[in-house]
Amino acid sequence: MNRTGILFVISGPSGVGKGTVKDAVLKRLTDIKVSVSATTRPPRVGETDGQDYYFIDTEKFQAMLEQGEFLEWAQVYNNMYGTPQSFVSNKLADGSDVLLEIDIQGAMQVKEKMPQGVFIFIEPPSIEELAQRICKRGTDSEESIKRRMAACREEMEHSRYYDYLVTNDDLQEAVVKVYSIIVAERCRIRKNNEGVIGS
Amino acid sequence: MNRTGILFVISGPSGVGKGTVKDAVLKRLTDIKVSVSATTRPPRVGETDGQDYYFIDTEKFQAMLEQGEFLEWAQVYNNMYGTPQSFVSNKLADGSDVLLEIDIQGAMQVKEKMPQGVFIFIEPPSIEELAQRICKRGTDSEESIKRRMAACREEMEHSRYYDYLVTNDDLQEAVVKVYSIIVAERCRIRKNNEGVIGS
Repeated sequence: MNRTGILFVISGPSGVGKGTVKDAVLKRLTDIKVSVSATTRPPRVGETDGQDYYFIDTEKFQAMLEQGEFLEWAQVYNNMYGTPQSFVSNKLADGSDVLLEIDIQGAMQVKEKMPQGVFIFIEPPSIEELAQRICKRGTDSEESIKRRMAACREEMEHSRYYDYLVTNDDLQEAVVKVYSIIVAERCRIRKNNEGVIGS
Repeated sequence: MNRTGILFVISGPSGVGKGTVKDAVLKRLTDIKVSVSATTRPPRVGETDGQDYYFIDTEKFQAMLEQGEFLEWAQVYNNMYGTPQSFVSNKLADGSDVLLEIDIQGAMQVKEKMPQGVFIFIEPPSIEELAQRICKRGTDSEESIKRRMAACREEMEHSRYYDYLVTNDDLQEAVVKVYSIIVAERCRIRKNNEGVIGS
């Protein structure tokens, strides 16, 4: 057995529910490693360092960035977020599968560096439906929702770079689909030129 | 919606249990069409024409063969077996997925004609295990079992032409895997050059 792990990337527009889908999938698949992001934002109540995020300061983040230590990174408002490449590479080399749940810009960066990954796009049933969901959360202004809808329309264009498209209409169905994708990909016979060596 | 169906081919060495796996998968997926083979062998007790097989005579079979109407065919002892191409093509064009359960020689013929199909190889946990299963059925002589084991070794070589490899160690696990492959493939984003148009 000389198996290299498979990298699964779950992504999609903001507000689509990809975090909820990921959490539910992880309850059914306990043998997959979840990548933990580094961030410069302060921990929220209940968040644990090394579990929810690696909480680091801006200097440390900048140093890692300059060393090329991030698989993907982004600045959101004044905070930096990034996925340390070493964690992902080590787990894959050990034969573990790794799951990353990130936004679309991040997924595109990962795709460039690790094209052999399996990229899953979670889409809303419709853009209107997405707007309603964000509206219900009550955290966004009307202006912000309009901006998000426009961003979502643009982000949907990126789905064609992905391997799988899962509509998050019914949560349970979406979970079964993502679970099935992982089970199926583990049975896939990878050809040499796909860069991942099978068992 | 202008979806073309997906052709799923379940195959593997004789005695591996691919029929049992297929039947169990069909109980969970009722929206997939199963291709019915044509054969010149007489019906067995309980078999229904048009359901288990299309029972046709040798002349009719030969005529269909000459007209290129089989997606795959084989002679087993004195009987001819074949999959009518029209059934499969019509269902796919209608947007239905089609499931074919055939032997490895047949699957290789289908692969040549419909390379866009999804090919699933069911393998035994080991060749020794396969021999034991055939032995338990009590229908084969020692000589026949040895011959089957040699054939199986050769057939296993063909697995590299397939898309997925499922080990039939535990039946329930094998069923979950084949089911997952079908669910996942329905979510796959097919690129234009793959020959199957997505929804």
